[in-house]
Amino acid sequence: MSSRSRDIDDLVVRARQGQARAVGRLISLIEDGAPELRALAAALARDTGRAQVVGITGPPGVGKSTMAGALVAAFRAAGKRVGVLAVDPSSPFSGGALLGDRVRMQEHATDPEVFIRSMATRGHLGGIAWATPQALRVLAAAGYTQVLVETVGVGQSEVEVMALADTTVVVLAPGMGDGVQAAKAGILEVADILVVNKADREGAEQTVRELQHMISLGRREVAGPSWRPPIVCTTAHKTEGIDDLVAAIDEHRAWMLSHGELDARRQRRAEAEVEAIALAQLHGRLGDVLRGSALPGLAKRVVAGDLDVYRAADELIAELTG
Amino acid sequence: MSSRSRDIDDLVVRARQGQARAVGRLISLIEDGAPELRALAAALARDTGRAQVVGITGPPGVGKSTMAGALVAAFRAAGKRVGVLAVDPSSPFSGGALLGDRVRMQEHATDPEVFIRSMATRGHLGGIAWATPQALRVLAAAGYTQVLVETVGVGQSEVEVMALADTTVVVLAPGMGDGVQAAKAGILEVADILVVNKADREGAEQTVRELQHMISLGRREVAGPSWRPPIVCTTAHKTEGIDDLVAAIDEHRAWMLSHGELDARRQRRAEAEVEAIALAQLHGRLGDVLRGSALPGLAKRVVAGDLDVYRAADELIAELTG
Repeated sequence: MSSRSRDIDDLVVRARQGQARAVGRLISLIEDGAPELRALAAALARDTGRAQVVGITGPPGVGKSTMAGALVAAFRAAGKRVGVLAVDPSSPFSGGALLGDRVRMQEHATDPEVFIRSMATRGHLGGIAWATPQALRVLAAAGYTQVLVETVGVGQSEVEVMALADTTVVVLAPGMGDGVQAAKAGILEVADILVVNKADREGAEQTVRELQHMISLGRREVAGPSWRPPIVCTTAHKTEGIDDLVAAIDEHRAWMLSHGELDARRQRRAEAEVEAIALAQLHGRLGDVLRGSALPGLAKRVVAGDLDVYRAADELIAELTG
Repeated sequence: MSSRSRDIDDLVVRARQGQARAVGRLISLIEDGAPELRALAAALARDTGRAQVVGITGPPGVGKSTMAGALVAAFRAAGKRVGVLAVDPSSPFSGGALLGDRVRMQEHATDPEVFIRSMATRGHLGGIAWATPQALRVLAAAGYTQVLVETVGVGQSEVEVMALADTTVVVLAPGMGDGVQAAKAGILEVADILVVNKADREGAEQTVRELQHMISLGRREVAGPSWRPPIVCTTAHKTEGIDDLVAAIDEHRAWMLSHGELDARRQRRAEAEVEAIALAQLHGRLGDVLRGSALPGLAKRVVAGDLDVYRAADELIAELTG
């Protein structure tokens, strides 16, 4: 056994004892794409799917972090240990927004039964969608079996992150204007529960009506019995409506269990994770080959206009596989 | 010759005559990742690098589209035919923002010497970074040799799009707060020219000073003689400062030509494009294999906790390559 995998085993033992520092170290290794991840995955295989994961997404400014803070309080009141991952999937830059989010959660920061962490990836293929399931295993091993995954924004990467949740909560707010309009069509695709936050503001009822209309248009084309996303109104900074949201989350979980949907989602997630790791490894090999390959010469002919890019790609593939 | 490649040849002939409809049809084929792209690449090999590409990026709300409109007017005044690609790389949703951008450019919409187009991709691997160079060839073939590429936002995908420009203009505005702060560190990495737009607003001087400070910290670690990004102040809706911006773009181009940087960038771009096409094709083959593979069975063992994800990936790779 190498010293590295001994280190991992030691960190895993301490994480299982609930030591937050060990949990943090392991998640840092995941962010870095460290070579030790192979040993970590082996040590945590049995923790797959043990975390109950609620995803929170929505456009900036709708109050996702306040919402997450209120949910953490509700879960704590129910005696659960809670993990929070604040994920910024699309930015290559250090996330100022997420630091802000952590500040807004500071009432929980000193609670040893709550583990809060923002997470980024440093440019891996597959990025955060590949790192998040590994971090969820670490949290589950440390007994944080109720996990909130929060993302900033509503882009493609956020949709990928939300595919990792058991229940996805999409948060909107009245009067958000164009950003929300643009995102709504896509948002309905991923939402298990829709929240209209800041429900004490003008326009909340209209936002609810618009969402009801969009749901009734039946954009979800699902095989089998389908879940109709409920709309929950909240005013998170006053913790109004949070009980309704918790009830909706429980109801969605019960529905999934009784319809085999939780198992189906876990199976799809495991398939996606294995495929992503296989792709990342193949991509690594490809990179090794490319560094010593004909690529610069092929590119030079493309720049000169003597070769088109598809035929250049053909020649490259022939070199890789031949 | 297939009827499809005859269609492509016909569209290319009409695009070369400057027919905007043919240009639009070809760019739609690129967005769709149509099989005809191979024939298109062959027909346009000699148009590689013929477009002079200025990229415009920056956080939402800084006035990128107004800036782009003012630049189009300046290029038109210099007698150039201008192409504008408004690219939304990160959103899987139909882009409301880009429609807005097009409206703001409507003063040019009826000018036959200006071609304006928003572009999205429908979930290809490599996405827009793969589609944009092909669209640039189409524009060059149609005589739109001065091209503006505009992106929304400042994420990783935007950085990839900007890698396709000869000169990247990063637009900021005073008082943008956290979003700008978060993005600044990354923004300097891609900026050839920094613009502080809305320079008539309070706080503009402070933004300039902050940027000067960041540039003086010398975050750019470049081999060889390095370009120091100038800071240009503009008030785009009054077209103030646009002449300075055009001068800065010309100066950057002259610097690149005299330092071999333009050739170096073109070489890097062609390498990246060929690699992206090769990867997309390998990925397509992988998908074909996966559909009939052991993946579901492997994922089932992962869900049960009997197999870790790395060993599952190993088994998958062994199946693919063995």
